[in-house]
Amino acid sequence: MAELSRLSFNQMTAGKATLAEVAAACVHHGVEWIGPWRYSVSENPSAAAQLIRDAGLKVSSLCRGGMFPAATKEERQRRIDDNLHAIDEAAAIGTDLLVLVNGPAPDRDLEGARQMVVDGIGAVVDYASRCGVRLGIEPLHPMFAADRSVVVTMGQANEIAAKFHAADVGLVVDVYHIWWDPQVYTEIERAAERIFAFHVSDWIVPTPDFLMGRGMMGDGVIEIERLRRAVEAAGYRGPIEVEIFNESLWAQSPDTIISRTVSCFREFV
Amino acid sequence: MAELSRLSFNQMTAGKATLAEVAAACVHHGVEWIGPWRYSVSENPSAAAQLIRDAGLKVSSLCRGGMFPAATKEERQRRIDDNLHAIDEAAAIGTDLLVLVNGPAPDRDLEGARQMVVDGIGAVVDYASRCGVRLGIEPLHPMFAADRSVVVTMGQANEIAAKFHAADVGLVVDVYHIWWDPQVYTEIERAAERIFAFHVSDWIVPTPDFLMGRGMMGDGVIEIERLRRAVEAAGYRGPIEVEIFNESLWAQSPDTIISRTVSCFREFV
Repeated sequence: MAELSRLSFNQMTAGKATLAEVAAACVHHGVEWIGPWRYSVSENPSAAAQLIRDAGLKVSSLCRGGMFPAATKEERQRRIDDNLHAIDEAAAIGTDLLVLVNGPAPDRDLEGARQMVVDGIGAVVDYASRCGVRLGIEPLHPMFAADRSVVVTMGQANEIAAKFHAADVGLVVDVYHIWWDPQVYTEIERAAERIFAFHVSDWIVPTPDFLMGRGMMGDGVIEIERLRRAVEAAGYRGPIEVEIFNESLWAQSPDTIISRTVSCFREFV
Repeated sequence: MAELSRLSFNQMTAGKATLAEVAAACVHHGVEWIGPWRYSVSENPSAAAQLIRDAGLKVSSLCRGGMFPAATKEERQRRIDDNLHAIDEAAAIGTDLLVLVNGPAPDRDLEGARQMVVDGIGAVVDYASRCGVRLGIEPLHPMFAADRSVVVTMGQANEIAAKFHAADVGLVVDVYHIWWDPQVYTEIERAAERIFAFHVSDWIVPTPDFLMGRGMMGDGVIEIERLRRAVEAAGYRGPIEVEIFNESLWAQSPDTIISRTVSCFREFV
């Protein structure tokens, strides 16, 4: 089983709880890492940084940049500018990783949108590197191809990442998004030192909802431990982030959610 | 645009309508092909065959065989026996194609289940060949990996098919299941003479439901015409089957549904 010292609690797993509430619950349950979202950071990054520092927590990543494809040049530039802000925010809260959810196509042209992702990363990567922030491409499950990400497989993410330096651009491997892929173990091996993050949750059956239907580790069908061993064999030794979007989970207190997260992490990761 | 003479109406697109109702509506709207489901055929295949023959319709395929993986040897054998019945039914209604939806894993072991699919096809292919029935592997969208099919990409379906003779085992290419795949055009080219069927519908945004959320051609984001040209470039010239699971569509009469299908086929396929 994975060591508890590697557990990172993604803020979204506690739904609408504030960053302060989540941080306090992490400390209470011995969780050492936290993964904040920009909506808790952007308005005042130094205050968010102070809050996390005061709690004694480490930051595994900031969610999220990306969303590069857009119909007009002006809008694409606006998205790039927003990513530059996200890079600043990541640096401000003391993480070296910005997670990229790359966005849908503005029309039916998937290939065109995929090129916009490459161009968008290319437009921000030097700045990110100077700020000490790596860019983690997160391939999303193909069911999100139309509304959240034209990047949908590990193979595709590896190909995009390979266009940049391995120190600057890599992959966020989330079991929920990639477990179904017949090529997943091959592509994890190929990603090697480009694996920048490892996220866990579970795929429950029947699946209650596209976005909000993720399960706690052990409640579903994903071979989580096998995937964890595969990313470790590929060289990844960093934090393991628990990211679960689920309304019935969110109905509970941060304390209850984190307590359950710790126990499922011990048993199923 | 595709010729209307290639349009095949999959029975399920008219929801719970009987085979007789669907056949009559096809004839009324000049549709020459029909794709029945086993629930309308199994009980009395020769009566179904007679009904279709009397209507003057051709049969593009029978849905569906497959569902090979199971926890015990006995249950796997029961599935194989059921596929032998399905092959008989396909032959009885005068089609040379049985569509295979290959089933989920009985546990968390995807690789094991994928091997059961290969073994299952291997157990029935000779019989199918003697009956003049080809087996069409339909890769389903990865969102169905846990509950309907461990075969989820064109690449994977191509690899399984390649273990058998090209005259016996090939692919059912359904745009709804494969449009998101960065490798889709490469894999269509690779499939070549193994493309046994081409199914159309559309991916609507936001998607109302996993299973029941398919849209009519033109209502969504899939590059249908481009995919149709790709399967044609690969050599496919057969019927184009419209298969849509959608409750709001099903609330309408077969006549209304087929009329709309013909018009969307003319405009968007």
